[in-house]
Amino acid sequence: MRANVDIIRIFSITMQVKFNTIGLIVRQDLHSHLETVKLIISALGKYADVPVHCLDSDFSHENFPTLTIDELVDRSDLVISLGGGGIIQNAARALVEKDTPLVGINLGRLGFLADVSVKDFEQHMVEVIAGKYTIENRFFIEGEIHSPNSAVTSNIALNDIILHTHESLSMIEYELYSDGNLIHKQRADGVIVSTPTGSTAYALSGGGPIMHPSLETLAIVPICPHTLSNRPIVLPANQEIELRLGQAESIAKVNYDGHSTVIVSTEDRLRIKRSAKTIALLHPENYDYFQILRAKLYWSTHY
Amino acid sequence: MRANVDIIRIFSITMQVKFNTIGLIVRQDLHSHLETVKLIISALGKYADVPVHCLDSDFSHENFPTLTIDELVDRSDLVISLGGGGIIQNAARALVEKDTPLVGINLGRLGFLADVSVKDFEQHMVEVIAGKYTIENRFFIEGEIHSPNSAVTSNIALNDIILHTHESLSMIEYELYSDGNLIHKQRADGVIVSTPTGSTAYALSGGGPIMHPSLETLAIVPICPHTLSNRPIVLPANQEIELRLGQAESIAKVNYDGHSTVIVSTEDRLRIKRSAKTIALLHPENYDYFQILRAKLYWSTHY
Amino acid sequence: MRANVDIIRIFSITMQVKFNTIGLIVRQDLHSHLETVKLIISALGKYADVPVHCLDSDFSHENFPTLTIDELVDRSDLVISLGGGGIIQNAARALVEKDTPLVGINLGRLGFLADVSVKDFEQHMVEVIAGKYTIENRFFIEGEIHSPNSAVTSNIALNDIILHTHESLSMIEYELYSDGNLIHKQRADGVIVSTPTGSTAYALSGGGPIMHPSLETLAIVPICPHTLSNRPIVLPANQEIELRLGQAESIAKVNYDGHSTVIVSTEDRLRIKRSAKTIALLHPENYDYFQILRAKLYWSTHY
Amino acid sequence: MRANVDIIRIFSITMQVKFNTIGLIVRQDLHSHLETVKLIISALGKYADVPVHCLDSDFSHENFPTLTIDELVDRSDLVISLGGGGIIQNAARALVEKDTPLVGINLGRLGFLADVSVKDFEQHMVEVIAGKYTIENRFFIEGEIHSPNSAVTSNIALNDIILHTHESLSMIEYELYSDGNLIHKQRADGVIVSTPTGSTAYALSGGGPIMHPSLETLAIVPICPHTLSNRPIVLPANQEIELRLGQAESIAKVNYDGHSTVIVSTEDRLRIKRSAKTIALLHPENYDYFQILRAKLYWSTHY
Repeated sequence: MRANVDIIRIFSITMQVKFNTIGLIVRQDLHSHLETVKLIISALGKYADVPVHCLDSDFSHENFPTLTIDELVDRSDLVISLGGGGIIQNAARALVEKDTPLVGINLGRLGFLADVSVKDFEQHMVEVIAGKYTIENRFFIEGEIHSPNSAVTSNIALNDIILHTHESLSMIEYELYSDGNLIHKQRADGVIVSTPTGSTAYALSGGGPIMHPSLETLAIVPICPHTLSNRPIVLPANQEIELRLGQAESIAKVNYDGHSTVIVSTEDRLRIKRSAKTIALLHPENYDYFQILRAKLYWSTHY
Repeated sequence: MRANVDIIRIFSITMQVKFNTIGLIVRQDLHSHLETVKLIISALGKYADVPVHCLDSDFSHENFPTLTIDELVDRSDLVISLGGGGIIQNAARALVEKDTPLVGINLGRLGFLADVSVKDFEQHMVEVIAGKYTIENRFFIEGEIHSPNSAVTSNIALNDIILHTHESLSMIEYELYSDGNLIHKQRADGVIVSTPTGSTAYALSGGGPIMHPSLETLAIVPICPHTLSNRPIVLPANQEIELRLGQAESIAKVNYDGHSTVIVSTEDRLRIKRSAKTIALLHPENYDYFQILRAKLYWSTHY
Repeated sequence: MRANVDIIRIFSITMQVKFNTIGLIVRQDLHSHLETVKLIISALGKYADVPVHCLDSDFSHENFPTLTIDELVDRSDLVISLGGGGIIQNAARALVEKDTPLVGINLGRLGFLADVSVKDFEQHMVEVIAGKYTIENRFFIEGEIHSPNSAVTSNIALNDIILHTHESLSMIEYELYSDGNLIHKQRADGVIVSTPTGSTAYALSGGGPIMHPSLETLAIVPICPHTLSNRPIVLPANQEIELRLGQAESIAKVNYDGHSTVIVSTEDRLRIKRSAKTIALLHPENYDYFQILRAKLYWSTHY
Repeated sequence: MRANVDIIRIFSITMQVKFNTIGLIVRQDLHSHLETVKLIISALGKYADVPVHCLDSDFSHENFPTLTIDELVDRSDLVISLGGGGIIQNAARALVEKDTPLVGINLGRLGFLADVSVKDFEQHMVEVIAGKYTIENRFFIEGEIHSPNSAVTSNIALNDIILHTHESLSMIEYELYSDGNLIHKQRADGVIVSTPTGSTAYALSGGGPIMHPSLETLAIVPICPHTLSNRPIVLPANQEIELRLGQAESIAKVNYDGHSTVIVSTEDRLRIKRSAKTIALLHPENYDYFQILRAKLYWSTHY
């Protein structure tokens, strides 16, 4: 726990503070890291008000009275998420209607979004609070389900929207359109519409390409396509994508960022487009996307 | 319908008959092909007794009183399946305890198993009945689920046995063993254990290799594996494969040939081995596996 | 040859002519299509002056005195290329310093660039000459080789620039940079830097994604990479890519659009960036990129 | 260098010796490991005569007078190769006409064939000399080139035989036959015919499956095939494979285990079959193929 002692020491340096209230979102299963969390709060507390939200209530603690995520978002002008891959995504979704920036701290291996380690936390937060950081905006995509006899429902995703089989392990037949033009009609386990942010997540396992986070593109990645000549396609993010179930299908599911599943049927239309909403990630000034890529995909090792 | 007239003509040639009773298994949705079916029965009827089984009862017809599939199998010394890919697989499973050979007639494009077209049916059946054919044995695999507190359950498959996620679109973590040796522990949407017969079915969409049908091998094909360096593995069919769910999993599903799904949990062991059971496919004497492969995978066309 | 008769007939309709001189670039091996070429020239000749360039001199013919490609380009305000995939690429390179638009006629199956068939030629050219067409600009990329002791050499490509082994069938080790940041260092048979135009050519065989032609992106596609977790990467076209040979390498080759090979050594730097140059393709008004994609990749067929 | 001291100590234990003469094949570039080599020789020398062969003459040393590889093979009843991946393959080829078994010691990371580390060398060799080991036979394949006007030439390979383009970066068109039956005709950068031993080498980078070393199979792996529906095929090793160049090709190259390249032309036939020759690898008794697979492919790490 020497690193945490260092956190306190460094934060005692006097500095100009850019953020007055820093919200901290903590994953519930971090009980074992309670001391780390307390030290982080204590360190941050010298420079800012630090409300805490836990994704599950049983992490609440007398040291840091917790808030609902909406209360936390309302009060904070910077949010830090503490945990693994999923929590920063949840934090991003909670912030989508705000301009509040987000920093992701990873307690384990660095993630593509949560790119600050506990070890480097101290140095990084000193710099962030002093205004030294890189801002990177990542866009959301929005899916709308148009049904013949009901109102349009919609949801957003930072990584991907997936049309897939209702029953696991059966194929769906679907038609894919871009701005109204048929791309193809085919059978597969499902189809992933991925943002650049999502291109290093599920879409990568499905054979999709890595897309640089600055790109305004979407990748269409079929999951186990029946047509062997099928390949992932990269499209401009400003083209509207439409997915329709083939006539032989009765129902399928639509999935946003790995949850929030909605059932659709043959008459429904799933329309996906780039959302105007973005999340502002604050990175260290020496942030290097490719360095994280190499580390995550073991490109620096040799076979 | 000129072809069917030809069927009748050719069958009127006198010949030595090798099979006395030929069972005909017809898919239920072949209503539109009723005349074809009637002509086939009429043609076969000159040489053999032809009981008929329909996979769904509403295809029964005054011209050919139907049987249950068990009755049909008991009475026949040759079985013909008429329909697409699924029906010959069902027929093969029904015949698994018998030595009765099987011929697959395809009403559409030729399949890997149903390799006789209606057009060539006449010539082929004349030859088969006269004893001119190639026999090819395809082996089944058998999956056993060993649970701590219940009896072992087992099932067979001609194509593949698949361990996969209970909820569609979530990963499972599993351990794979071969004759008791750990191969790997990994996360994926699922994992396919495929016979050579199944290697041109679902496993091919998952990135598995094509395995020649004469091989005594099994392919292990992960579905969308999280570990990007994962690759399909071909193992000797006489090695017993065992799949275990990782500790983090609660439940998953086991699937035999695309149906017959069984739920397993962390304590269960799924053991897969080559079955002693085989199905004897009767092919035309000029049968060419590679010709079907080229046609099915569009290798003869040029990009 | 009835179609060609139709050409003549349709071209006799009086119309407003947009292009006064139409250059025709014909592949040398089209001897067998001489009559077709003559009829095309004759048809076009009613509306415009038609100089002809053949990629090989022995196709010259008394009916149409030929020019050098530079002479043809200088004189034409529209260029038609007649032949397969390679010839339109050559035509595009010849036009790179001009604003002259290009139409590709394909004598065989439609290509991604040469998307007008001989059969549809008549109707399409009537419309083009009347000003009914879609213009699509495709960008070139430019590769510069910086060597310690010699002047910078450069060349352009419409499809791809490839760094690859000098000897066929040996690996190279290379480092890949984007705007000065290391992406990765790895061993492979080679690495393809592909434009959206090239994404349906060699890069597709190497496992790269299809990129919509309107995108300002480049794909980095390693050829048989040693590191199994390596994946194609899509980058913004405005990032400069640099490739360096690893220390262990002595020499390798750089290839522009499948030819124009240059040898590089360890000290050299290959820098690739989007060229300011583009080629304007004239498409039929009903041009549909995805329709050609489906046809070329057999997506409309069913396995 | 403590490990080497331990080697000497352990070898002084009295034991029954199974091998009287142990040949040591050392890679030339191991100058920096001279002390390690000397200690290994010294340790082995207590139990057996140890002739040494260096793949390049300039490693010869007064401490161990060297032999040609043929002299060494003639005199040894066990051969140890010391170095990386390539040297054990060379050693295997030199031993192909003998029954002499082979042990591979790897000075760096363990290889698929050279699976003994310097650290474990001491313990392993004590056991080997005492007769405690596992024997694994790996088969060679033999390629014969039949030309119209010249004698048949042949060569063997432990990993793979590859037909590929003469010029790097151009496609070849070839026809592939199995026991005289056409499998397919297609265009690609080349095609790999791989043994199970070679399935973790170049064929793996080309998208081929991993084949268990006990299998009697060959994998056909096209390199960057033009036909996108093309897939690797696993065939029985007792089928003879024939490769012919398409009519459009003039020449191509045939490559055995990464070297020994031979030029072939359109009239030539390349016939590949399992050789009767095998190499006997001696493994530690606790040898685990899958453990090496996991380590080499980083399957034990988590993304």
